[in-house]
Amino acid sequence: MGSGVCAAVTLKHSKARASGWIVITFGWGFAVLAGAYIAGPLSGGHLNPAVTFALAIDSGDWDQVHLYVLGQMLGAMTGATLAWLTYYGQFEKNEEPTLGIFSTGPEIRNTWQNLVTETIATMVLILGVLSFGMTKGLGESGSLTLIVALLVVGIGLSLGGPTGYAINPARDLGPRIMHAVLPIPNKGTSDWGYSWIPVAGPLAGAALAALLFRAAF
Amino acid sequence: MGSGVCAAVTLKHSKARASGWIVITFGWGFAVLAGAYIAGPLSGGHLNPAVTFALAIDSGDWDQVHLYVLGQMLGAMTGATLAWLTYYGQFEKNEEPTLGIFSTGPEIRNTWQNLVTETIATMVLILGVLSFGMTKGLGESGSLTLIVALLVVGIGLSLGGPTGYAINPARDLGPRIMHAVLPIPNKGTSDWGYSWIPVAGPLAGAALAALLFRAAF
Amino acid sequence: MGSGVCAAVTLKHSKARASGWIVITFGWGFAVLAGAYIAGPLSGGHLNPAVTFALAIDSGDWDQVHLYVLGQMLGAMTGATLAWLTYYGQFEKNEEPTLGIFSTGPEIRNTWQNLVTETIATMVLILGVLSFGMTKGLGESGSLTLIVALLVVGIGLSLGGPTGYAINPARDLGPRIMHAVLPIPNKGTSDWGYSWIPVAGPLAGAALAALLFRAAF
Amino acid sequence: MGSGVCAAVTLKHSKARASGWIVITFGWGFAVLAGAYIAGPLSGGHLNPAVTFALAIDSGDWDQVHLYVLGQMLGAMTGATLAWLTYYGQFEKNEEPTLGIFSTGPEIRNTWQNLVTETIATMVLILGVLSFGMTKGLGESGSLTLIVALLVVGIGLSLGGPTGYAINPARDLGPRIMHAVLPIPNKGTSDWGYSWIPVAGPLAGAALAALLFRAAF
Repeated sequence: MGSGVCAAVTLKHSKARASGWIVITFGWGFAVLAGAYIAGPLSGGHLNPAVTFALAIDSGDWDQVHLYVLGQMLGAMTGATLAWLTYYGQFEKNEEPTLGIFSTGPEIRNTWQNLVTETIATMVLILGVLSFGMTKGLGESGSLTLIVALLVVGIGLSLGGPTGYAINPARDLGPRIMHAVLPIPNKGTSDWGYSWIPVAGPLAGAALAALLFRAAF
Repeated sequence: MGSGVCAAVTLKHSKARASGWIVITFGWGFAVLAGAYIAGPLSGGHLNPAVTFALAIDSGDWDQVHLYVLGQMLGAMTGATLAWLTYYGQFEKNEEPTLGIFSTGPEIRNTWQNLVTETIATMVLILGVLSFGMTKGLGESGSLTLIVALLVVGIGLSLGGPTGYAINPARDLGPRIMHAVLPIPNKGTSDWGYSWIPVAGPLAGAALAALLFRAAF
Repeated sequence: MGSGVCAAVTLKHSKARASGWIVITFGWGFAVLAGAYIAGPLSGGHLNPAVTFALAIDSGDWDQVHLYVLGQMLGAMTGATLAWLTYYGQFEKNEEPTLGIFSTGPEIRNTWQNLVTETIATMVLILGVLSFGMTKGLGESGSLTLIVALLVVGIGLSLGGPTGYAINPARDLGPRIMHAVLPIPNKGTSDWGYSWIPVAGPLAGAALAALLFRAAF
Repeated sequence: MGSGVCAAVTLKHSKARASGWIVITFGWGFAVLAGAYIAGPLSGGHLNPAVTFALAIDSGDWDQVHLYVLGQMLGAMTGATLAWLTYYGQFEKNEEPTLGIFSTGPEIRNTWQNLVTETIATMVLILGVLSFGMTKGLGESGSLTLIVALLVVGIGLSLGGPTGYAINPARDLGPRIMHAVLPIPNKGTSDWGYSWIPVAGPLAGAALAALLFRAAF
């Protein structure tokens, strides 16, 4: 759904073409809503290696981290492939670079600036995920995931302008791999030179948020 | 309300004219919110034959499926008629094809592509509907239907670009029948050649989602 | 807040000028959210004579209806006055008709069409208000008013195009009186010829919804 | 996040540039959502001296007010600094006045009018904050903060047009100090002549709301 909303807003012959940042951010937030509510009862619903990383730091339990990250990568790659199938006709007629549909990229390319942006945005996300459970009743009423999804909308609205807010290594790297693999006409570069930033930034943000959370609570 | 929001955005002499995809998708999502909360205590609140179909596959109980589908069709036809009455003055002055207000249609006409798009989008919906009940507290706090409505907003935002996201056979076929029947000036074709796709795609998506759900849970 | 959002979108020298239908509809919906949650513990939170009328029909208890309607009218007039004070500087520089900030008006003027539009839109609102309490847990979790507010957003998005969706006699008549009274430069007509339609339509819709609700449940 | 969304919409080289009032208001509302849910378990989650002031008036307990206000100011200054770091590259290329990213300013400069606007908008906020706890179940289900955040969205949509809705002295003064301090090219004036209005107006609104609340309940 995340790749889908970027396709919806970007590609020609889409009913949502050029419908703007409000569509992108609510599309992504409600994609997280869908994924986290569906996966919640099976796995706790974390779709994001940065979340898994922060919870492992916080709990000290690293046993299943590799399995979670593997699942998250496979899920992101599957999602990107389904988005491509959903917009197959639109991609067939594509004439412009398409990486922005799959993965993030900076408006101003600068390693340190882009890393800082992703680190700060992910810190906000992880602080929310770690602390929302402490609000009485939020878990019991089943609304915690909704609040996380609205937080993702909010982060996109406010902190997404410079880099497109990966804030999730799997969300960026998985679809980037699929962008490289899938047969899309005129798809342009997969920009591997940038690809480590939306992995390293979110992990740094997750670590900082986990330390800050432990210090504060 | 669903036909209404399309009329609101499409027709001349409407205060919401040309207000864009965000209005369409929230309008449709909150239409589902209204219908499902109102019908919930009477019937469980499924307005969508694809949902009924998936629940029948999952439970093995097909006894009342025909009654549900009949009700869903009558409801969709009634809704389309009320939307026409609400915008009666606007329709009287209409000079452009109006099928898009009642039913979906593809941006790029291609049987397989359009079927795939509707199938994938409906799978996401049905996976949500089947699994949201497993989140502790969501049903008990009365918020489950809200999450389904936000999921419908999200599917529209992200997967609605190619075909206009029927994801519900009754929502498409019922209003299409009314489009053919109602006396609207310059209403244009009811496009019966396409009409089976928003029926078959959602049913296929529902079946796939029911099987996937049983495999996963 | 309702008059406020219309001022925000309409008046020159407003930061929200020309921000569109999505702003109008969410502004109105969250105005209902604010008013109904604040007034809820004192009076049950109905701000709308159509709601009071429907509940009286449903319960048979008409004892306090006149007090409720008086309070609703005074509240709507106070709100319109506060909106005028909030946008006082903008109103001072006004050069265009301002009735649309205070009260509704039709895009196409036609008594029967406008009455039908207001009747249908209010029926949807009242059916929601009457039936949402039957969803288990919605009242107990404090979320019922939120769902009503989102329904008001939805009605605005989908059924508000022709007349601007009064769906509440006090919301239309109270501010119309203030429009006539307040000293606004170049304010234009208060359009008293139309003023009975956003009163009669919502009351008719409320009565129809109450009867339909009793028949269905 | 609040300064962030204003940067996102205002600065060149931002993906959200010129995305409008709906983005600003939801960005600010979900910023409050994030901050209040994260800080809630530690401090009760009030980020706003006007809220603290109103609660002190209502309870008569002024013991920790100075500590709360100190924390609120430090938080707002930290947030503004993080927003600057997030958009560091965009700020480096800045060529236009940037105060609007950090603090509020009036569309029409008039001391009394601007004070009245901030007072009324803050009254609405504080009446909500004081009374939402009286809705049964809203606190217990963890949803109270969500309703406050949606109220902030609503106030922005409807009452934010004239002054940009500070409705929080710390939210305006803290970032204004950082605007004066931070090394931003072509940043323009920090407009200290206006700076007392978004402090005095919200405090006046908080006092009025506390008195009104006590009178009503």
